[in-house]
Amino acid sequence: MRDTRSANPVLVEVTRGPLVESRHSGAIAVADADGRLVLALGDVERPVFPRSAVKALQAILLVESGAADAFGLVDEELAVACASHSGDAVHVEAVRSLLAKAGLDETYLVCGVHWPVSDKAVRALIKAGRRPQAIHNNCSGKHAGILAACVHLGLDPRGYERPDHPLQVMIAGIISETCGVRLARGGMGVDGCSLPTWSMPLAALARGFARFGTGESLTPARAAAATRLKQACFAAPELVAGEGRFDTMAMRALAPELFVKGGAEAVHCAALPGLGLGIALKIDDGAKRGDEHALAELLAVLLPKAGAALAEQLDGETVNWHGLSVGRIRASDGLRRALGSLAATPRRQAKA
Amino acid sequence: MRDTRSANPVLVEVTRGPLVESRHSGAIAVADADGRLVLALGDVERPVFPRSAVKALQAILLVESGAADAFGLVDEELAVACASHSGDAVHVEAVRSLLAKAGLDETYLVCGVHWPVSDKAVRALIKAGRRPQAIHNNCSGKHAGILAACVHLGLDPRGYERPDHPLQVMIAGIISETCGVRLARGGMGVDGCSLPTWSMPLAALARGFARFGTGESLTPARAAAATRLKQACFAAPELVAGEGRFDTMAMRALAPELFVKGGAEAVHCAALPGLGLGIALKIDDGAKRGDEHALAELLAVLLPKAGAALAEQLDGETVNWHGLSVGRIRASDGLRRALGSLAATPRRQAKA
Repeated sequence: MRDTRSANPVLVEVTRGPLVESRHSGAIAVADADGRLVLALGDVERPVFPRSAVKALQAILLVESGAADAFGLVDEELAVACASHSGDAVHVEAVRSLLAKAGLDETYLVCGVHWPVSDKAVRALIKAGRRPQAIHNNCSGKHAGILAACVHLGLDPRGYERPDHPLQVMIAGIISETCGVRLARGGMGVDGCSLPTWSMPLAALARGFARFGTGESLTPARAAAATRLKQACFAAPELVAGEGRFDTMAMRALAPELFVKGGAEAVHCAALPGLGLGIALKIDDGAKRGDEHALAELLAVLLPKAGAALAEQLDGETVNWHGLSVGRIRASDGLRRALGSLAATPRRQAKA
Repeated sequence: MRDTRSANPVLVEVTRGPLVESRHSGAIAVADADGRLVLALGDVERPVFPRSAVKALQAILLVESGAADAFGLVDEELAVACASHSGDAVHVEAVRSLLAKAGLDETYLVCGVHWPVSDKAVRALIKAGRRPQAIHNNCSGKHAGILAACVHLGLDPRGYERPDHPLQVMIAGIISETCGVRLARGGMGVDGCSLPTWSMPLAALARGFARFGTGESLTPARAAAATRLKQACFAAPELVAGEGRFDTMAMRALAPELFVKGGAEAVHCAALPGLGLGIALKIDDGAKRGDEHALAELLAVLLPKAGAALAEQLDGETVNWHGLSVGRIRASDGLRRALGSLAATPRRQAKA
């Protein structure tokens, strides 16, 4: 039945009136830096594409290579290199500045073009009679960071998106070592922005984010790079996503206890440095409402302040176009039970 | 395991490179007017909210009551009364005209406000410095049709959205009789546009659409009303959805062999009059890409012309922002096997 039936449990339910109208199944891994699983719900060994959830791991090279220091990058520029940004003016300026410091401009970007995530940015472009450019692509900061590392290392930026470009080989090495997993070319996909995305199990991703959060099992230089990137994202959380979006709101409220980054197709990763844990989850169907709700429920169990900080997300009320309350997004009984067990598990004390 | 595990099979897979990245489970019912199931994949007895997929059934009263004739409604106005429209000028004009013929205007609409589905319409509003109005709501035609029936029957339109308003009681009766199912108040939800949505099994919905398509098991007046609505949608398929959208494209290519209408949360219904069959399907997670692909695969088996007409949908290639082919939306092995069996089943000859 492997081909025809989802092996993962329902994690999130969408109710309407008296019924469950829709269901999101998926898997969640919570692990420490040694890969010990504190929670494994669903199939956490099935490979998934981490997509944009690992942008901070992809950005490690920018710092570790010395490029960030050499170009004098500031928090906003490092944060946007880790971002799936909304394409607002603040993001476009940070990407442009990052590129300029490396002596480049946006003509080098091969991420492709889409309308900004931000409605405000869309309206501004339309009112000005303009079309979006590559710099508005939510991935333009990641691409700019990779280009800056290219320049610093004296590499030809042409073809920087290809898996055999030296930069991509180095980035794959960092991801592989951080997550403690071998990346196979046969498990590679091409991301929405044309960079390679390397499939791996959620269990490995969670371990990688535990290491990214704590620095444990990383070389000193890599641990320092992870710290620098986290600090940048904590200092400028609006650069990592945008106003009104989950990652920005959650880090604004919960940093430095939480680093969090989502990706397309409902992958979400997080690091909880104080607890020494990493989180990786994926909703099978790719629905953002599913991964964000499941993650909020999980964070509410792990971080004392998360219940209040994510109250609206946790409430999950859905309101129709006429302002009527019509239903709710909520944890399934299965997720609730698993989180109940997790809450009862003793955990390492948060570091002072 | 009922609470924590989806009971339905995976119907549609989304691949990226070498892997299946995301999965959509769901259920499909294909039935004749007597309710005999030609195909039952997944749980077709679990109640689902049909949402906008039954707008044509909700519109029957508009014709059956004599309102459509009394007000001299034309194809475009009847089609938009069955529509989840894109909010383009052609839709807004048809709704406005329908309301005007009934002596009403858009201030009577309680469907609420959202930005038009159509990017072109959104851009036009922004360029003009305007906000959307209730008439841009994809359901405004349905509401206008209900209001016109109210006026014709001498009923107070106030509160026309409430389940105990005489119009809603009559509409619920029509849906109940057409689908051959008792509608329980305990299974009612409130739709996005504030009208009641009555849950029922996919098997009943499929039977209802077989009857809507053929007129079988309906009173002569109701069968005539169904014929009039179908003819209107076939004559003006761009009014039922909008340019580039599945229902419009499919009916433009396949009418009068196909009437089709989707609803929110990935419900889709269709009538195949020549084959005497109705279709109802729902993807568990509510993803449109899932229901549209599954329906296209099913139609390609049932209607000889559908393979060519829906070729792009069936191909399912996904292309990233840079124009690279990155994956595919495709039928699962389970769906493919079920459709293989269906193709081998003898069916009633299409009527001449």
